[in-house]
Amino acid sequence: MHDLVIIGGGGAGLTAALTAKKTNWDANITLITNEELSYSPCALPFVIGGEIEGLDKISKDIVKICKESEINCVIDTVISIDADRKLVKTERGEEFSYTSLIIATGGVPFKPPIPGVELEGVYTLQRIEDARKIMHALEKAKNAVVIGGGAIGLEMAAIFIKRGLKVTLIEQFEHVLARPLDPDFSVLVENKLKERGVEFILNKSVKEIRGEGHVESVKVEDRTIPADIVLLGVGLRPNSELAKKAGILTVDGGIKTDGLLQTNIDDVYAAGDCVDSRSMVTGKLMLSQLGTTAIRHGMITGMNAVGGYATFEGVLNSMILKIFDLEIGRTGLTEGDARENEIDIVVGKVKGTTRSSYFPGAKEIDIKLIFNALNRKIIGAQVIAEEGVAGKIDLLAFAIAHNAEIMDLMKLKYCYTPPVAPSHNVIVEAADNALKKLRRMMEVRKRRF
Amino acid sequence: MHDLVIIGGGGAGLTAALTAKKTNWDANITLITNEELSYSPCALPFVIGGEIEGLDKISKDIVKICKESEINCVIDTVISIDADRKLVKTERGEEFSYTSLIIATGGVPFKPPIPGVELEGVYTLQRIEDARKIMHALEKAKNAVVIGGGAIGLEMAAIFIKRGLKVTLIEQFEHVLARPLDPDFSVLVENKLKERGVEFILNKSVKEIRGEGHVESVKVEDRTIPADIVLLGVGLRPNSELAKKAGILTVDGGIKTDGLLQTNIDDVYAAGDCVDSRSMVTGKLMLSQLGTTAIRHGMITGMNAVGGYATFEGVLNSMILKIFDLEIGRTGLTEGDARENEIDIVVGKVKGTTRSSYFPGAKEIDIKLIFNALNRKIIGAQVIAEEGVAGKIDLLAFAIAHNAEIMDLMKLKYCYTPPVAPSHNVIVEAADNALKKLRRMMEVRKRRF
Repeated sequence: MHDLVIIGGGGAGLTAALTAKKTNWDANITLITNEELSYSPCALPFVIGGEIEGLDKISKDIVKICKESEINCVIDTVISIDADRKLVKTERGEEFSYTSLIIATGGVPFKPPIPGVELEGVYTLQRIEDARKIMHALEKAKNAVVIGGGAIGLEMAAIFIKRGLKVTLIEQFEHVLARPLDPDFSVLVENKLKERGVEFILNKSVKEIRGEGHVESVKVEDRTIPADIVLLGVGLRPNSELAKKAGILTVDGGIKTDGLLQTNIDDVYAAGDCVDSRSMVTGKLMLSQLGTTAIRHGMITGMNAVGGYATFEGVLNSMILKIFDLEIGRTGLTEGDARENEIDIVVGKVKGTTRSSYFPGAKEIDIKLIFNALNRKIIGAQVIAEEGVAGKIDLLAFAIAHNAEIMDLMKLKYCYTPPVAPSHNVIVEAADNALKKLRRMMEVRKRRF
Repeated sequence: MHDLVIIGGGGAGLTAALTAKKTNWDANITLITNEELSYSPCALPFVIGGEIEGLDKISKDIVKICKESEINCVIDTVISIDADRKLVKTERGEEFSYTSLIIATGGVPFKPPIPGVELEGVYTLQRIEDARKIMHALEKAKNAVVIGGGAIGLEMAAIFIKRGLKVTLIEQFEHVLARPLDPDFSVLVENKLKERGVEFILNKSVKEIRGEGHVESVKVEDRTIPADIVLLGVGLRPNSELAKKAGILTVDGGIKTDGLLQTNIDDVYAAGDCVDSRSMVTGKLMLSQLGTTAIRHGMITGMNAVGGYATFEGVLNSMILKIFDLEIGRTGLTEGDARENEIDIVVGKVKGTTRSSYFPGAKEIDIKLIFNALNRKIIGAQVIAEEGVAGKIDLLAFAIAHNAEIMDLMKLKYCYTPPVAPSHNVIVEAADNALKKLRRMMEVRKRRF
């Protein structure tokens, strides 16, 4: 009998369990998780915002799911992995021996070492109980400060505004979404939030969170901003302590794995937010920490851990956010990433419309394609509009994964009908724009001789 | 001086003129067209339906556009091409000599040889004056019969319903959209139209259109359906008479061209609805007759006719329609096309949601991916939903053009956020469904040995 133990019941862990069962029905699978509910953390802001009515809409009973697939579900916390004896121990004193093990311990919201960070009223948002606490706090909160202009920070800033709070967002970099987007696209997001009333303090760090027991204000350089609710959205740390103690290698906190998502210890796999992934463009290790990556990790480890064979191709960090009515999408490298990786680039950038410009409801769309200037291959893209962004990001991610060149995108066989998609596709136009820039570069060079 | 003459001011002709000017500013370009307005025929139904307010919203002054780009615009009709002397003659008796010629004469709506087809109240819809006539007729029409369940027929049936008419749609094949879709997807469209009140008469041909001067009824086998407006939507014939008379070869009515879109006569190119295109999947000649194909043809001939070099890669007939709130998309081959071409296929078909299923406003989405069973390459796709179809069709068309296999689609780096795109992408799920079917086929085979 093959005994598979999975630590963690999030997107990666549960997907791994279900995939393993489908791959090898005879395997004895045990999922150990400290949460009784299965849900996507990405849905939490929308429950808090009231768009989704109640936390039970987004959560499922993990014990029930497991039972239906003949997976043993143990609600407990693993406290150690003994890789030599191949067993894990839990807080309640139970021991589970394994033939293969999948570590899917996820991430923990980072709490920066700011004085006052432990005050009441200061929240992170990752688990369902965080959402409950924030919803409760919102019943009487008036002034919100969001620390960090990442995905969660921006989503929560928008929700606080919708709930009628005064909102200040503090970001230590020059722009919000500083890693997923380039400044020219970050500004579009900032403008939308400003228009709706969010005040920004950019390029500055929080010095202190103040209050007697409960938060009262946030100090940033010379300013003190009143706050009865503070949301920390400064990133997720891979939850890899358990793995490290068992002798599993990590890089920058993320568990290091091979192409099968196996760790340095045989038969021990890792999946989800606790794992380092490789960029499909640069080949370098990075933390992806997306729900989609967790699902794919789960599928691959679930197969490999019970005798299947699947390899992980890497990540592009394709991402989409909805902030007010704005859809913000990105995939692959930014211009900044390209500079860091010393890749010469040419950028195609255009503004178009989501439907034929004369059709009622047509919205502006901003698109940027980033190409490697040496081989003309697409390496990244950013798209912002009020509709139709997801399909374009998926397409551009597919193009990056398939080494598409500028001309490949110019030949895109897109569809057209005035109420849904315009006769001139913005992807084609952005590629054309990049090609024109390349030709101009060649012209300039020619003239020098 | 290079003299380029272009016959036709539709999407293909005008794009060719503008592209030629950009390619070679010194070329002397003359565009001869019998319409003073530039517009997309695809927009006409939406003007008739009142969604777009007025024909002037969708039309531009072609003389003005030409003037801005220093293109000579002649409003006239070409009556002959003299390929030996390299000149064209117009109805008004003018002669234009050319160094190179682009024929972009478009298509003419087919009028089937049914008795009564010339009665008043029987319309086709291709030109702006057709739209004007139909709008006028709609002021007092009560009973509409649509002959032909193609794109125009369905769009117009929906518009007639919205305008409060009783609508009967007659289609000689077993299902509407019989060429672009397979029956299982056609049925979804039929159901939507039935739900909104359209009566269907399928698999039957119109015998006669009756009336005294003006249409009064339509006879289909043993039934007589009252009608004060009849819309003929039974296809477009390539307008290739002029070309044929000049000794230019055609196939099934469409002008035959090489990879540069040059006809059998040197320096004579052809673009748009009058031209045969090659399927990117089968390599066979076919009539594409889409606005997107016309634009691409226009770009390529516009370059080639003034000394540039561009090749036409072929068509996938990526198409999208909006009928009521339903978006209907398709690209590549249908199952029927595959059978005709003797391609063994495996089909992945799933139902999903457009957003996370728990998110308000999430709609059902139906998707079908058609793979060549021998090499697992995607060769066609159909998608129907109330949102998000265009991006998926474009992506799948790109996948077909790039010889993507089942596994390539399963590795799609899609984006996810509950309000816009679900955590499990339907393209990935449909590919997975196809893979499962292939594996089952292998299992069945194995057991026989």
